[in-house]
Amino acid sequence: ACGSHATSDTPPKPPADHRQLGVQQELFATSVYSPGSPLLLPNGARIFNRLVDFLRNQYVRYGFQEVITPTIYKKALWAKSGHLENYSDDMFTVTSTSPSRNDATESTEEDEYGLKPMNCPGHCLIFAAQRRSYRDLPIRYADFSPLHRNEVSGALSGLTRVRRFHQDDGHIFCRPSQVEEEIRKTLDFVRVAYNVFKLGPYRLALSTRPADQYIGTADDWDRAESALKRALESSGQKWTINEGDGAFYGPKIDIILRDSDGKEHQTATIQLDFQLPKRFELEYQAPAPELEQKGETTTDAEKLSEFGPVHPVLIHRAVLGSVERLMALLIEHYNGKWPFWLNPRQVIILVINDSPPVLDLAKSVQEMLLGVEDPTAAEQGPVVNASQLSVDVDNRKISIGAKVREAKAKGYGVIVTIGPRQLPKKTVTVDLSRFSDGTPGDIHKQKEMTPQELLTLLKAKVDAYA
Amino acid sequence: ACGSHATSDTPPKPPADHRQLGVQQELFATSVYSPGSPLLLPNGARIFNRLVDFLRNQYVRYGFQEVITPTIYKKALWAKSGHLENYSDDMFTVTSTSPSRNDATESTEEDEYGLKPMNCPGHCLIFAAQRRSYRDLPIRYADFSPLHRNEVSGALSGLTRVRRFHQDDGHIFCRPSQVEEEIRKTLDFVRVAYNVFKLGPYRLALSTRPADQYIGTADDWDRAESALKRALESSGQKWTINEGDGAFYGPKIDIILRDSDGKEHQTATIQLDFQLPKRFELEYQAPAPELEQKGETTTDAEKLSEFGPVHPVLIHRAVLGSVERLMALLIEHYNGKWPFWLNPRQVIILVINDSPPVLDLAKSVQEMLLGVEDPTAAEQGPVVNASQLSVDVDNRKISIGAKVREAKAKGYGVIVTIGPRQLPKKTVTVDLSRFSDGTPGDIHKQKEMTPQELLTLLKAKVDAYA
Ligand SMILES: [Zn+2]
Ligand SMILES: [Zn+2]
Repeated sequence: ACGSHATSDTPPKPPADHRQLGVQQELFATSVYSPGSPLLLPNGARIFNRLVDFLRNQYVRYGFQEVITPTIYKKALWAKSGHLENYSDDMFTVTSTSPSRNDATESTEEDEYGLKPMNCPGHCLIFAAQRRSYRDLPIRYADFSPLHRNEVSGALSGLTRVRRFHQDDGHIFCRPSQVEEEIRKTLDFVRVAYNVFKLGPYRLALSTRPADQYIGTADDWDRAESALKRALESSGQKWTINEGDGAFYGPKIDIILRDSDGKEHQTATIQLDFQLPKRFELEYQAPAPELEQKGETTTDAEKLSEFGPVHPVLIHRAVLGSVERLMALLIEHYNGKWPFWLNPRQVIILVINDSPPVLDLAKSVQEMLLGVEDPTAAEQGPVVNASQLSVDVDNRKISIGAKVREAKAKGYGVIVTIGPRQLPKKTVTVDLSRFSDGTPGDIHKQKEMTPQELLTLLKAKVDAYA
Repeated sequence: ACGSHATSDTPPKPPADHRQLGVQQELFATSVYSPGSPLLLPNGARIFNRLVDFLRNQYVRYGFQEVITPTIYKKALWAKSGHLENYSDDMFTVTSTSPSRNDATESTEEDEYGLKPMNCPGHCLIFAAQRRSYRDLPIRYADFSPLHRNEVSGALSGLTRVRRFHQDDGHIFCRPSQVEEEIRKTLDFVRVAYNVFKLGPYRLALSTRPADQYIGTADDWDRAESALKRALESSGQKWTINEGDGAFYGPKIDIILRDSDGKEHQTATIQLDFQLPKRFELEYQAPAPELEQKGETTTDAEKLSEFGPVHPVLIHRAVLGSVERLMALLIEHYNGKWPFWLNPRQVIILVINDSPPVLDLAKSVQEMLLGVEDPTAAEQGPVVNASQLSVDVDNRKISIGAKVREAKAKGYGVIVTIGPRQLPKKTVTVDLSRFSDGTPGDIHKQKEMTPQELLTLLKAKVDAYA
C-alpha cells in the first residue's frame, strides 16, 4: 500500500502472470476472431505435446486406452445425456448453413448438433457398441479432444478463462466392487503427476450425498462413499469431507492445489456417476447379477450359475484437468524458468564466426541433437526416433556476447558455442548453468564435450522429467 | 459374370472393404448421433497416433513446427479469407444457444462462428502476429486439428466420406525465391512417406494457370510454374501437366496414388496460394523488396540498402491428406494384415494354465514389453519411455489350441506362450510366423527367448517402420 515510500528497497515482485510470460516466451496468442480460443504457437504446442506425451506414458501403467471421438453430436444425444436439459446455456449449437445439406427431411430441429463440452456421452456410445462381460471390466477410455464451453465473453482471459480447451479426460467403466481400487489408482496417478511437476501441496475433498435430491439408492451411495473413503485413507494424503456437497448423480473427490502464493486451484477431479450408465442403458453380463450390482460376491453355485445384466459404475476423471489451465499454472509456477524437459527453448547453438567450417559444424551438431542426421544416405530414409528436443542455431553477424545475453534472456536451457577452436576435435563448448536449475556450484559451468556426450546428457534429463 | 458355373474354382476374392475390416478389427464405429464423424476405437486410435508420430518424426527433418489452433472462428475471419463467399455451403455454423452468452451487443450476426473446414486462416493469423524478416523464412506450420466439412448425408460412409476428419496439414510461408526448394523438399517427404507405407506407385500432376480468371500477374505464375517444374523434374518421379487446371489463386501439384486394384486416389496435395497472403496482408521485411517479390537477387548496394515489405508465398501441403482416408486406404492395402509397427494387435501372451506362477510370469513379461515395470520401487515414480506396443494377455480357461486360433484370427503379430516349462528360466515361446510378413522360411517359426531379447526384436521392427 505504501510502495511509494520504499524507493530504496526492491519493490515487491508482482506474482507471475501467465499472459505476460506467454507473450514473452511466444507460447500462445489470442485473436479477436477467436475469443476464448487461444492459438498455441510452436513453443506452446511443444509444451502441450510433451504434457500429452507424459500422460500417454502413464496411461500404459494405469490401463487407459485412447479413443478419438467426434466434435459435434446431434442434439438427440445431448437430450439422452441430459446436457440439453441442464447444460444448454454452456453449449454451442452447430447447424448447416446450406438447406441442401440438411439431414432432416421434415423438421430442421433434428438437424442441429451440439458442439461437445465433454467427452462422456461419446465414451458411453463406445462402451454400448459391444456386448461386455464382467471379465472385460474395468474399461478405461482416455481422450484429448478439444472441448467447447460457452463462457460469457467478459470473463475470457489467457489460457485460464477460455471457451475452447483440452482435458486429459478419462472415463472408467467398472464393476461396483472395483470402485475402491480404481479410485486408489487414480489418486496414485495424481500423486505421480504432481510430483513430476513439483506442484503442490494439494488436498483432497470428498463431496458426499446431497440431502434432498439424488439418484440411486442410499445404499448405493453409502457403499460408494465407503469405497472412496478407504481409497482416500490409503492414499496417505490429507483429505476432508464436504458433507452433502456431491452432485445429484454421484459423490466426487476434488484435488485442490495450493500455489506458491497460497492461492488454491481445483485441478484434478474424480466424479462417480450413477446416472449416465442408466441414461445410456449401459450394461455388462455377470454371474449373480443382483449381488454383483451391489458389489458383493458369493460362492453360492446356484446364484453364480445365473447370468444377467448389470449397470457399470462410471467414473469421470481428469488428472491435469484442463491442459491449457495447467499450462497457465505451470507458467506461473516456474515463472518462465522451465525444467529442461518442458522448456520450449532447450538448446541454442551460437556460432563465434560464420566461416563455412564453423557453420557446417553447427549444422551437423544441430542435426545430431535433433536426431535427424543420416550423413551416409544418398536417398534418405524416414527419420526414426527424433529426439524432439528443440535445438536452434544463432548464426547472425553480431557479437557472441550479444548472442549469449539474448539466449539467456529468452530462457534457453543449454547454450552451446562453436568456433574455430572447436573445429579440430569437433567438440562443443556447453554452458550448463541453467540446465541444472541454477544450483550454486553450477553457475557458469562451461564444459567442453562431444555432441554425442551432450545428447546423452540431455536425454537423461528429459527421461528424468527434470 | 458366370460365377455360378465355376463352383469348383475359388470364387474371385472381392476387394477388401475398409468398413468391414474396420468392424472386424475393432478400429472404428459409426453412430446415428454423429453421421460422418466416425468414432476411433482404441485399435483405430493406436494406428492414428502412430501415423501422427511418424509424421512428427519427419517434421523434425523437414522443419515443420506444430501449432494448435482454434476449432471455431467468427464469421468475420471467414469473410476475410474468402471462405464465406466461396465455401459456405460446405461449412457448419456455430451459434450461442443462450442470449446471455452473446458477444455482440446489437446484431446477432457478429456472434456467429464458422466451424473450421481448414487450418489456413488460423496459420495466417499466427504468421501475421509478429513482425517477420526475410531471415525468418521459410516458416512452416503443421497442425493436426479436427476439420469439419458439411458433406451431403447420402454420401457419408466409413472413414472415406466423412464430415469430420484430420489432415496432416501444413502451411509454408516462404520467399518467392524459395518456392523451388520447398516443393523439392515436400516431394521428398512424399517419397519417404509412401515408401514407408509401401503405397504406390503414384504419379504427380501439375495444374497450371487457368485461361480466363486468375489473381496475380502472368509473370508471377510463370515464375512459380517454372519452379514447380524444376522441382518435379528433380524428383525423379513421373509427372504430367493439366494445362489451365489450376485454381484461380495458384498452381498445384496433386499426388495420385494407384492402389492394388488399379484404382486411383488423390491423397497428397501441394497448392501454391497468391491470394491468402494478400487477403491477410501478410508480409516480411526484406532488402530490395521489389526484386525480392519477384524472387530475384541483386548485388547492387543501393538497392540492398532499401528495406521494405514483401508478400510471402503461401504453400498449402498435406502428405497423407486426410489421416482417416489414408487409414482407410491402408486398411484395404494391407487387407487387415498390418505391418508390425502399425498393427493395433501387436503381441498376445497366452498362458498354458492359470497357476499363480504362470500368471505372474505372464504379467511381468507383459509389463516388461510395455515398458512400465519397476519392480523395486515401493512408491513408483513416473513411467518413462513406455514402448507403446500393444501387449495383451489371454488367461481364460480354454484350451491353448483355441487361444492360438483366436489370436491368429484376430491378427496378432506375435504370439507368446507361457507355461510351466518356461518357469525355471523365465523365458517365453514366441511364434514369429506373422511377424516377418509370412515370408516362406518363417512359417510356424517358434523360438524360445528371454523377454528382453523379444523386446529388442520388437523395438527394432518398430524402428524400421516394418
Ligand atoms: Zn466425463
Ligand atoms: Zn491450407
